[in-house]
Amino acid sequence: MSILVVGSVAFDDVTSPSGTMKNILGGAATYFALAASYFTQVRVVAVVGGDFGAEQENVFRQHGIDIRGIERAKGKTFRWGGTYSDNLNEAKTNFTDLNVFETFQPQIPKEYEDTDYLFLANIQPTLQADVRRHMSAVRLTGCDTMNYWIQRTPKELAQTLRLVDLLLINDTEAKMLAGETNLPRAAHKVLAMGPKALVIKHGEYGATIFFREGAFGIGHHPFRAPALPIEEVKDPTGAGDSFAGGFMGYLASEDEVNREVLKRALFYGGVMGSFAVERFGTERLQSLTREEIEARFQIFRELTHLE
Amino acid sequence: MSILVVGSVAFDDVTSPSGTMKNILGGAATYFALAASYFTQVRVVAVVGGDFGAEQENVFRQHGIDIRGIERAKGKTFRWGGTYSDNLNEAKTNFTDLNVFETFQPQIPKEYEDTDYLFLANIQPTLQADVRRHMSAVRLTGCDTMNYWIQRTPKELAQTLRLVDLLLINDTEAKMLAGETNLPRAAHKVLAMGPKALVIKHGEYGATIFFREGAFGIGHHPFRAPALPIEEVKDPTGAGDSFAGGFMGYLASEDEVNREVLKRALFYGGVMGSFAVERFGTERLQSLTREEIEARFQIFRELTHLE
Repeated sequence: MSILVVGSVAFDDVTSPSGTMKNILGGAATYFALAASYFTQVRVVAVVGGDFGAEQENVFRQHGIDIRGIERAKGKTFRWGGTYSDNLNEAKTNFTDLNVFETFQPQIPKEYEDTDYLFLANIQPTLQADVRRHMSAVRLTGCDTMNYWIQRTPKELAQTLRLVDLLLINDTEAKMLAGETNLPRAAHKVLAMGPKALVIKHGEYGATIFFREGAFGIGHHPFRAPALPIEEVKDPTGAGDSFAGGFMGYLASEDEVNREVLKRALFYGGVMGSFAVERFGTERLQSLTREEIEARFQIFRELTHLE
Repeated sequence: MSILVVGSVAFDDVTSPSGTMKNILGGAATYFALAASYFTQVRVVAVVGGDFGAEQENVFRQHGIDIRGIERAKGKTFRWGGTYSDNLNEAKTNFTDLNVFETFQPQIPKEYEDTDYLFLANIQPTLQADVRRHMSAVRLTGCDTMNYWIQRTPKELAQTLRLVDLLLINDTEAKMLAGETNLPRAAHKVLAMGPKALVIKHGEYGATIFFREGAFGIGHHPFRAPALPIEEVKDPTGAGDSFAGGFMGYLASEDEVNREVLKRALFYGGVMGSFAVERFGTERLQSLTREEIEARFQIFRELTHLE
């Protein structure tokens, strides 16, 4: 089945203990699309400027990603620069030039309207809600957000959360959104806001999926997937979006969304996140094979499973 | 088989968002002994004062724990007071009265010398090393330590680490001990200091065991066990010691220490830690049944295992 991602395409300048890379292709929609492309047909709605050319288009095209929904606007593409220090858990933002992204109004091509799955990457919540309403026939909608929207546009975000099936955020965001420091209690509060399931990403410790009672016709017991202990994280940028791409892409590749499929999706999310951080930007995500993905899935399984 | 724990027995005053409890039985050796008692024969070497009476003795005796090694000294038992705020991850220490524990010199009763397994709870590293040398016939030694010893007595600690098979510490301690912020790299550095295996406890995210290449005749791939998402943590005191008790107690109950046994031990560690925090002090650890432990082991398995 097909999946549509709506979000940012960007150029990043990244510095980490492993070095510095400038003008590398990034953005949530890019990481998501590449990660998901190993599982299913991916479509992208985003906006870029005149600096986005054939080289960047080819990154998507080589993975069979449909980019008819990437709008070309006058001006420059969104640019972000960040520095990761030793612990690699948080970037210091050096600059954020929104450029054409500042006035982004997602336009869904007619050809995209039959898309089965939808992922609303981290953009202004009202835009997310508009896209969700426009794509009224989708089977399942996933959503991301961030501290900025949780703090600045709580009402708009609450509206969006009523329209989505799955929310994927990190510990800090979940606690902030719920106003609650205990993680499972925070999860229940967030689920009461709308989503059927909540994926909380714990960075190097993996992720937990919490279910609303009765959602997907399954019990409410949570499930945890690990992250791989990685000795050399070169660039953590896009790890969360790659996680979301693996998670949603795998879901879209299956006929049914049940507990077992959601559990495996959580593992595939971790797998794609673990690949993303091994090289700068999207380099590793561009060069994978499905065999490598399956091999790492097995490593994740061995990391956590008793005989 | 039998296991000997050497460490503190204490009285604690604990305040958490769930309330305040005073003069409750605590100490690393107490939590460890109770947790391990569900798996194997436990012996304790510790020191207490005149305020330790029949009531406290009975807590141990009711679990078949051998306390002939608990020395009665003139004075008061070690007392600690702490307050946990909302996030429950770290206690603010209100007071530490070492009392008789200040001059603790572990004396091993003759009857204990045939003990098979040894756990050196968090005490001064030179005392740990002395006990380890005295117990020359043990099959396996586990060890704990803390930031205080890592910073103040690094040479003494290094000596101790050469004498132990397993080290159980948390993320912060592992990173501090290794002088390294990346967790798997820190683990390798710590393993190079002596232990065959290193268990790093991640609090609410579970624990990872890292192996030295070839140790226990098994590969070097790490293994991760989860922690249970708990909605009401009443008192986190002793969670790590209860984890160690479940881990080491289960090991001591098995004929052989192999990869599969170590994996299951990591799960039992998490199980006992999860029980400990549900009530104040050792209350929950006092009232368990092996059936409850097995049922929670299954919950841990379902929390992490694909079909």
